[in-house]
Amino acid sequence: MILDGIGASSGVAIGKVFIKKQGTSKVPNTKIENVEAEIKRFEEAKEEALKELQVLYTKAVEEVGEEHAGIFDVHQMLVQDLDLNDQVVNFITEDKYNAAYAVSEAAVIIAAMFESMDDPYLQERAADIRDISKRLIGILTGEKEVSLADLQEPVILVAKDLFPSDTIQMNKKFVLGFITEDGGKMSHSAILARTMQIPAVVGLENALTKFNNDDIIILDGKNGKVYTEPTEEMVAEWTLEQEKYRNYKEELQKLIGTPNVTIDGVHIEVNANIGSPDDIENVLANDAKGVGLFRSEFLYMDGKALPTEEMQYEAYKKVLEAMEDRVIIRTLDVGGDKELPYLNIPKEENPFLGYRAIRVCLDQPELFKTQLRALLRASVHGKLGIMFPMIATVNEIKAARKVLEETKQELLAEGIAVSEDIEVGMMIETPAAALVSDLLAKEVDFFSIGTNDLTQYTMAVDRMNAKIAHLYDTHNLAILRSIKMVADNAHKAGIWVGICGESAADTTLTETYLAMGIDELSVSAPSVLEVRKKIQQVDTQKAKASLNL
Amino acid sequence: MILDGIGASSGVAIGKVFIKKQGTSKVPNTKIENVEAEIKRFEEAKEEALKELQVLYTKAVEEVGEEHAGIFDVHQMLVQDLDLNDQVVNFITEDKYNAAYAVSEAAVIIAAMFESMDDPYLQERAADIRDISKRLIGILTGEKEVSLADLQEPVILVAKDLFPSDTIQMNKKFVLGFITEDGGKMSHSAILARTMQIPAVVGLENALTKFNNDDIIILDGKNGKVYTEPTEEMVAEWTLEQEKYRNYKEELQKLIGTPNVTIDGVHIEVNANIGSPDDIENVLANDAKGVGLFRSEFLYMDGKALPTEEMQYEAYKKVLEAMEDRVIIRTLDVGGDKELPYLNIPKEENPFLGYRAIRVCLDQPELFKTQLRALLRASVHGKLGIMFPMIATVNEIKAARKVLEETKQELLAEGIAVSEDIEVGMMIETPAAALVSDLLAKEVDFFSIGTNDLTQYTMAVDRMNAKIAHLYDTHNLAILRSIKMVADNAHKAGIWVGICGESAADTTLTETYLAMGIDELSVSAPSVLEVRKKIQQVDTQKAKASLNL
Repeated sequence: MILDGIGASSGVAIGKVFIKKQGTSKVPNTKIENVEAEIKRFEEAKEEALKELQVLYTKAVEEVGEEHAGIFDVHQMLVQDLDLNDQVVNFITEDKYNAAYAVSEAAVIIAAMFESMDDPYLQERAADIRDISKRLIGILTGEKEVSLADLQEPVILVAKDLFPSDTIQMNKKFVLGFITEDGGKMSHSAILARTMQIPAVVGLENALTKFNNDDIIILDGKNGKVYTEPTEEMVAEWTLEQEKYRNYKEELQKLIGTPNVTIDGVHIEVNANIGSPDDIENVLANDAKGVGLFRSEFLYMDGKALPTEEMQYEAYKKVLEAMEDRVIIRTLDVGGDKELPYLNIPKEENPFLGYRAIRVCLDQPELFKTQLRALLRASVHGKLGIMFPMIATVNEIKAARKVLEETKQELLAEGIAVSEDIEVGMMIETPAAALVSDLLAKEVDFFSIGTNDLTQYTMAVDRMNAKIAHLYDTHNLAILRSIKMVADNAHKAGIWVGICGESAADTTLTETYLAMGIDELSVSAPSVLEVRKKIQQVDTQKAKASLNL
Repeated sequence: MILDGIGASSGVAIGKVFIKKQGTSKVPNTKIENVEAEIKRFEEAKEEALKELQVLYTKAVEEVGEEHAGIFDVHQMLVQDLDLNDQVVNFITEDKYNAAYAVSEAAVIIAAMFESMDDPYLQERAADIRDISKRLIGILTGEKEVSLADLQEPVILVAKDLFPSDTIQMNKKFVLGFITEDGGKMSHSAILARTMQIPAVVGLENALTKFNNDDIIILDGKNGKVYTEPTEEMVAEWTLEQEKYRNYKEELQKLIGTPNVTIDGVHIEVNANIGSPDDIENVLANDAKGVGLFRSEFLYMDGKALPTEEMQYEAYKKVLEAMEDRVIIRTLDVGGDKELPYLNIPKEENPFLGYRAIRVCLDQPELFKTQLRALLRASVHGKLGIMFPMIATVNEIKAARKVLEETKQELLAEGIAVSEDIEVGMMIETPAAALVSDLLAKEVDFFSIGTNDLTQYTMAVDRMNAKIAHLYDTHNLAILRSIKMVADNAHKAGIWVGICGESAADTTLTETYLAMGIDELSVSAPSVLEVRKKIQQVDTQKAKASLNL
């Protein structure tokens, strides 16, 4: 039987199932009398949990690097979260709940709060709340679950969900792959699986009921498929696939240090898209020299309030110092599917056609200026590019540049150094921007085409909407013609043009993009070497001759 | 002082304020004992209300024509609405409410139900429910409000809202204009005001508290403004405006019977957009020969279930027989901001980028075929054009034409006559369609550009979203370039191209459109003569020479 889930981490695993039972034991809801003593027990459990998390953090830094160990920092913060603590203390004081039951009930509320949020990142925090509540309850009741650290033979783990602490604790040597019922591509477990290079399928419905312990199964992490009761032929076939995948990964590794140059000697920039300074390590490991898109939203999404200029400056500086080549930082792109609760953006009928990105920034100059000050101050620490998102009119890019220039003059007047070599560019992601790209090209140093949004707007299709997903097609002629028009207009004006949408990593389009004269492709770190490999196989002269749009 | 509302009906009114008091008298909530007797009283009140509504209907037919009298048909239906009746009988039976109080409470619930609907048309039905509940309560309690039929001198009416029954009953001779707190451009009172040519401003916040009886005010219905405490100069100035407006309307009337021909002899088709067969009278009165856009949604929005083939056939036939020239009927364009409760379209994050129009029809062939059968059968009664909305790809138009051809063959096999002269066209409203219009032009007999949606998608702006309304600009260069590209591609393929969005009536764009070679403009009936006037002033040769996009 073939079971379908979501491919979370590529690779093939073949082996025995090990089902990780859910901690179903109910927390007893006995009432307490001494409120103060119970609150003290809760405080002590928190101290203990913080110590455990510190140990996990240290282990994680060793095993998966500092950037991914950060989740245990988050957990330490969440243990001390005021909402959670208030709720627990309230249950103990008002309802005379015992501390474990108070934590259990409070966690349900706080997790539900996170889950009700529209932002996928914040939704995933619900799992973290459950993870720390289990830890606290375990400490308070003395009943701890069997640790995945105790695995004794190689298995494919099947679980409702894997908590970050599970993922870190598990003895990697014995985990061939894992399958979860819950979680999406962006859940922490999925991200860690990719970093640890463990094949994984997530979001497989009712996974716990589909397998028995010791079943032999085949897991195809790339395509999100699981094969049960495989025949000998299938095992042989997939063992070969496994081998091929390993060879392919090894082949790609050999491309490290080689240039992004086509057969006919054209050099293409291949840069990385990142979401936070923590991603840099992975970027360097994959031999990207520059960052083509640094999404600055992470600074705004993590906290409960706007990030200060100083916080932003430190983050930008860190990335600029780490990278040898140019780092393009995109100014705040909130709205659309990315909500910031504290910005009080009203609920919109069509958020993708709404108040977002540069529209918010031009409307809220203080918000915008704080970011621009941080960017300009950081500019002296590397080679900075500043990029404005969602530009639809010439007036908008002029207005954005005006605020940038004013901010620069203010900094200079304050005696603060600003680099003279900042490149200023814009995203092309509205059809309007593509259509007037000849005029826009006169206002900037570069274009970066955001093919995700450009495709959405051009086709009039929300790509999250499953019912019409077939119309979201980055190969559609209308999209390719738009991209060519933008490339032609950029080159006429003497500026460079890149692509930073997901299709930049689609190697079936690389030849077409190179035929159009695209100068740069910016992709997620794991795709850098794949794209390099493809570029090295292209002859741009031949590609241009056969381009027919 | 200048007060801002929404211009609902053009024209200037200068005169005394008459404030229409709200019926604030509370309905007494005394309990009853004899349930059966009270239900009988309710039934009798319904009979009485139906009689009154029949009288109003007859009066309305005389005064504003059959098409607008239809609202009193709707009221008769609503009096007999099952939801309302069940709720009233339930309150009487279960809660022992007296009939008047039961009606009053039931109306609150049913009106709230309508208001919570996402569709503006259904939302407006809440006002109708309140209107009929007032009528029923008046009959049951014997307390009727002072009728606007009793006005004795010319006044400008100020009211919270005017119910359709108020509008019809009021002595038109004495109503110079009206102002309401509630209501939008599409409320029934607003529509009736335009038909009766009474200047009106709606949606003026707190209107009831802004004026006193007998205040002299100036009402500018076109711009939605009201001037209080005007100086003598202002009165003189606005009296002149009033005169000008009257002259302008008279001048336009003189254009009836003249051709839509430019100075240099180019003939442009000026057709009308309609929403139902009832609009035909107004179309003919404004001297339009053809219909450029017949929105077939009205058939689907009015009822609680899908319209039958027969119902559709009758409606299409009626319009085709009435018009001397071509009638272009657009196939169902639901979704987006137009919801059909009985189609069970799931709530979408971005309905404008969702499952709508041709996407629904191609996905639900039975729904689509029923409409196509009705259209093809009606084709023998006039000159029919069939137009498909929201096409984004060549595959979609091919698929739509295939279903059309299959349906035609089925009808012929059944021995049913179908015209051989049907024109088949499509809307250009997605940026993708504009970008591949060279290929699409080979698949159809004509294009009609829907500038509303084309602008929304190209600029990535929901035009209903007030926060970013400034970006919704049909004059934007990107939009004009798109339209020119479509016109050029249409003409290269030898097909004609029209515009049926609201900007077709924007006379500041007429010259530009004619310079691009647009062959047809389809506008609401009241704009036909204005556009004709503008066309007669254009020299297309000069316009082409100065076109610079």
